[in-house]
Amino acid sequence: MKTVTVGIIGAGRIGKVHAENITKFVPEMEIKRIADPYMSEETVEFLQRLRIPYISNDPEDVLNDPDIQAVVVCSPTDLHAEYTIRAARAGKDVFCEKPIDYRLERVHAVIDECRKAGVKLQIGFNRRFDHDHRAVYEAVRAGRIGDVNLVKISSRDPAPPTIEYVKVSGGIFYDMMIHDFDMARFLAGSEVTEVFASGAVLVDPAIGEAGDVDTAVVTLKFANGALGVIDNSRRAVYGYDQRVEVFGSKGAVMDGNDTPNNAVFYGEDGTVSGTCYKIMWDRYTGAFAAEQRAFAQAILNGEQPQVTGEDGLYPVLIAAAATKSMKEGRPVKLSEIE
Amino acid sequence: MKTVTVGIIGAGRIGKVHAENITKFVPEMEIKRIADPYMSEETVEFLQRLRIPYISNDPEDVLNDPDIQAVVVCSPTDLHAEYTIRAARAGKDVFCEKPIDYRLERVHAVIDECRKAGVKLQIGFNRRFDHDHRAVYEAVRAGRIGDVNLVKISSRDPAPPTIEYVKVSGGIFYDMMIHDFDMARFLAGSEVTEVFASGAVLVDPAIGEAGDVDTAVVTLKFANGALGVIDNSRRAVYGYDQRVEVFGSKGAVMDGNDTPNNAVFYGEDGTVSGTCYKIMWDRYTGAFAAEQRAFAQAILNGEQPQVTGEDGLYPVLIAAAATKSMKEGRPVKLSEIE
Amino acid sequence: MKTVTVGIIGAGRIGKVHAENITKFVPEMEIKRIADPYMSEETVEFLQRLRIPYISNDPEDVLNDPDIQAVVVCSPTDLHAEYTIRAARAGKDVFCEKPIDYRLERVHAVIDECRKAGVKLQIGFNRRFDHDHRAVYEAVRAGRIGDVNLVKISSRDPAPPTIEYVKVSGGIFYDMMIHDFDMARFLAGSEVTEVFASGAVLVDPAIGEAGDVDTAVVTLKFANGALGVIDNSRRAVYGYDQRVEVFGSKGAVMDGNDTPNNAVFYGEDGTVSGTCYKIMWDRYTGAFAAEQRAFAQAILNGEQPQVTGEDGLYPVLIAAAATKSMKEGRPVKLSEIE
Amino acid sequence: MKTVTVGIIGAGRIGKVHAENITKFVPEMEIKRIADPYMSEETVEFLQRLRIPYISNDPEDVLNDPDIQAVVVCSPTDLHAEYTIRAARAGKDVFCEKPIDYRLERVHAVIDECRKAGVKLQIGFNRRFDHDHRAVYEAVRAGRIGDVNLVKISSRDPAPPTIEYVKVSGGIFYDMMIHDFDMARFLAGSEVTEVFASGAVLVDPAIGEAGDVDTAVVTLKFANGALGVIDNSRRAVYGYDQRVEVFGSKGAVMDGNDTPNNAVFYGEDGTVSGTCYKIMWDRYTGAFAAEQRAFAQAILNGEQPQVTGEDGLYPVLIAAAATKSMKEGRPVKLSEIE
Repeated sequence: MKTVTVGIIGAGRIGKVHAENITKFVPEMEIKRIADPYMSEETVEFLQRLRIPYISNDPEDVLNDPDIQAVVVCSPTDLHAEYTIRAARAGKDVFCEKPIDYRLERVHAVIDECRKAGVKLQIGFNRRFDHDHRAVYEAVRAGRIGDVNLVKISSRDPAPPTIEYVKVSGGIFYDMMIHDFDMARFLAGSEVTEVFASGAVLVDPAIGEAGDVDTAVVTLKFANGALGVIDNSRRAVYGYDQRVEVFGSKGAVMDGNDTPNNAVFYGEDGTVSGTCYKIMWDRYTGAFAAEQRAFAQAILNGEQPQVTGEDGLYPVLIAAAATKSMKEGRPVKLSEIE
Repeated sequence: MKTVTVGIIGAGRIGKVHAENITKFVPEMEIKRIADPYMSEETVEFLQRLRIPYISNDPEDVLNDPDIQAVVVCSPTDLHAEYTIRAARAGKDVFCEKPIDYRLERVHAVIDECRKAGVKLQIGFNRRFDHDHRAVYEAVRAGRIGDVNLVKISSRDPAPPTIEYVKVSGGIFYDMMIHDFDMARFLAGSEVTEVFASGAVLVDPAIGEAGDVDTAVVTLKFANGALGVIDNSRRAVYGYDQRVEVFGSKGAVMDGNDTPNNAVFYGEDGTVSGTCYKIMWDRYTGAFAAEQRAFAQAILNGEQPQVTGEDGLYPVLIAAAATKSMKEGRPVKLSEIE
Repeated sequence: MKTVTVGIIGAGRIGKVHAENITKFVPEMEIKRIADPYMSEETVEFLQRLRIPYISNDPEDVLNDPDIQAVVVCSPTDLHAEYTIRAARAGKDVFCEKPIDYRLERVHAVIDECRKAGVKLQIGFNRRFDHDHRAVYEAVRAGRIGDVNLVKISSRDPAPPTIEYVKVSGGIFYDMMIHDFDMARFLAGSEVTEVFASGAVLVDPAIGEAGDVDTAVVTLKFANGALGVIDNSRRAVYGYDQRVEVFGSKGAVMDGNDTPNNAVFYGEDGTVSGTCYKIMWDRYTGAFAAEQRAFAQAILNGEQPQVTGEDGLYPVLIAAAATKSMKEGRPVKLSEIE
Repeated sequence: MKTVTVGIIGAGRIGKVHAENITKFVPEMEIKRIADPYMSEETVEFLQRLRIPYISNDPEDVLNDPDIQAVVVCSPTDLHAEYTIRAARAGKDVFCEKPIDYRLERVHAVIDECRKAGVKLQIGFNRRFDHDHRAVYEAVRAGRIGDVNLVKISSRDPAPPTIEYVKVSGGIFYDMMIHDFDMARFLAGSEVTEVFASGAVLVDPAIGEAGDVDTAVVTLKFANGALGVIDNSRRAVYGYDQRVEVFGSKGAVMDGNDTPNNAVFYGEDGTVSGTCYKIMWDRYTGAFAAEQRAFAQAILNGEQPQVTGEDGLYPVLIAAAATKSMKEGRPVKLSEIE
């Protein structure tokens, strides 16, 4: 089997997830190096158990290794653009975690540099590779529901992040709904042209004091005429609630929440079954492996990655429009951004 | 619209149910008379509100009225045969509540007399007309599952009857599983040839002292080679549990339990939805009306009723075989009975 | 049993539905009269079969009959207000089909006149009495989900009405989503303060040419801070799709679509179960009877009806705001209306 | 982390599954050796990719390596007993694939030798570790359904094995239902005392000619008084159908089939969702890893394995009783066996 030799920059939570998934589930990839300036002893041990040959504190080791064909960028967000551009300039294909950057000019720079360098760029919108959402997507693309009329997405987290995190997160639209903006485009098969955002502080007043909202509903208009609606909440006590629905001229297709098991109890007071997963990593575990396999295949087959740089750009534009819409209390056209 | 003029003998629980259903939901029927020797004032008022023209204490009034084309026999079980035979001899079509009788010679007499008199005889196996079981039946008959390999029926009551009732009930196979024997034949489209019955006393020791069991599993062999299995319990705390499944060469079709509503609550401790109906009359409400419409249509269209006298006979034979099987601890062929 | 003597004005589709339901399922009511200037022979026969004593062409017969305590107004919409006011002035309690009127001043007049006359006024928002939606409502009111954060409603018709109807319907917000505006207030337990409406013509261009949209998404803000979102489509090929969801601080509660039966087929190509009802009357059949029982009980017990005149007013205000929002492309506050 | 050094005997399908699962998902185990006399080049490459240090053709290498604390026996069935006994005599804990052997004296010998040697013996009844069945089991053990009254198991394969296999399989009760006999004991928490078996040839006449049946229903009596029923079919066209249900004095708990995704399509002709997995390895993928983790933990914590030698013995006894029951057409007590 032909394989791709990869290096990983960043060994935080998501870096370790990718390292583990590639090792176990992506036979098309070989990890040669992983580098992170700040690694705990546990992290090093974890990476050693995965038998990654070179573990270092210097991302330059990855960028400078001529054996490495592809780099997986898992650095802090504000370094995504820099490492991606440097890897591209070194002629390496890049898998860049989302978001590329919150600053539009940096996003454009990343896309331009990768294009100039002729390298592949895949963005880490892992949910596109989730088995349930993917089945919905495939039904839509196969024409089962005819023309898309409406895309509906519910996306709720089990618990809000810390207030410290909220303050630097860029706000709910950049931090949380950005996944749903990507999913909406993915499912609709069309670009968003207009956004109207409503928000409320219903979970924790401290989130409001930090200048953000914790509950939001955003309506979308797509270029193909379809409508969209997304709701987000920072706290669903029953777990990580992730559902999508696409309604069209020939029917509808929707998914539900996975549960740890499907046992059902019938008792005097009702019928009880399991709740959603409580943790994102459990819910989307297969999706992280699937996106890396797709990246490997794009490289090996010389194909366009399934999630391109433009796919990284648009959600940022939509998040900007949603933020502006909520602030100004009016619908905002995407053409107003940039 | 052509209608059938009917009389009802018996104004107990089931007699009132038929009276109400015919009045409200069976435009093809007009009730002229209802008669019962023992009617409370409430019963008379109830029947008056239904605007039944003649309400009396004498079943002869029904049998002797030349206007009445069809009689619905809702008397105590030990009088089913007598009233059915007398109505048949009077040239009236008969709807007879199940069971026709527990004594096989009486069942044969009823069938013979109705045949001789050239009148229609429909037996009150209402579950055949239930919307869910009927949909399973229709899928099977339409060939969706191919050849039938296996019929599975679960049938559990919310609570056991009184011990007094258990003593005179004829036992769980005659009293409760008889419905399932009918359903098994109906779904399999074939006759039962052999029965093996297991029973246990797990709900109430007093049921055992009364000579009966309260939990039973019966396996069946059908003439077409298929197998069947039925389980019964006198007490399912979560309600009236009624499910059927037919498995075949091209698939399977099964139903579940209806619930009073389909609302679902997602909470920290699980996902909770409603239980089964707690009361048989709520579960099978539509089936009682549907069987009367079918009876009216058989009369008006000159067709064979959907549940014939033979359909009344076979479940009694199977119940006899099951009773013998449990007593003797061995499989019993239907051919051993009679 | 104490009963209320009622008269019905209007014997069109909804008038006949109420006549039949009251006769069959509302023992607390006796229909004495029904009147409609335009009745076919079939309608008269239908009403006769229900044994309604007086059937006439003159609504005055209902209004002038001193025996009649309560009037059920099922006239064409533009006469709702007039008959309601005249019945109220005659001292009769009134059940008025929705909408009271599309003109706000007429709605106010109806409410005022009923208040002045000291009669009860119940508006025909039947969905509040649907078994599924009601179970959701009761879970919310019982505090199971804590504070309400979000109300989501999907409401889609199996097929669009005729273009002639669309032209006089007042538009999708007045004609179709008005039910959902009522449901949103009912579930949220709070008043709508702001509306943003998006619409599209995706089902039939002729609807657009008639000045209306056939697909719409509306976001709501409630006085208690909660958000809401409603989607409507004039055509769901799989049937009458009606789902509500309420999400809150302690969980979520939602319902699904009823189906004619719950049989499930397992075949080589997938698992197939029934679709939604294709016809509104089948879906909400029980709700029409339940709202009349509630009306009878309000009268007999001297209680406030469950759906008041104000409940008739607010959805019209919200529809006005939604219409304005879509036209002006901006969120509209309810306080801007009137 | 303390780990157990293991060797694997047998690198056929199940041996490779265990090798892969242990490598990826059982951090408590280190595979040092795997040995199989007949390994293809692909198998060797596969094992090399798992980085197993020693790969050989000689099981003696595993048995003689003093570093190896535990042996996973994945040899052909007729060598299970021999390798297990030899490993036990070498002082190694043993995980033995099911069935230990079809000959009861061999099963007893294995149990005795392991006891004498003081080593742990775990039998490979992987379904006990399946997430769905395990959740049912835990609900039962936690007392949620009160006393067990009835255990129901459906277990159907997507397609029959080859006739060659059928001829040497020992028959459906030893080859297929043996898993369900284990599951029945596991769920009931009680021993089987009596068995009645019905069988039929409905899938392929060649199976009948080979002396076996392809469809079977077995009823069980348990020592605690509960009843049980198992149905098996060699061919469910919709996939690998595996469901269990336990009914008791306080309720019931049951599971359903996992599907590759939970997307649902609503179309004009019905609502369509996915079928069961078509392949056993996909359905029980997690269970194979979980049973190895449990084995490792039993060793590391000095605990009794969750599936003991006796758990390997009883299903063989029940299969013998079922075979005898079907042949003799009568219920057979377990006490008649041996």
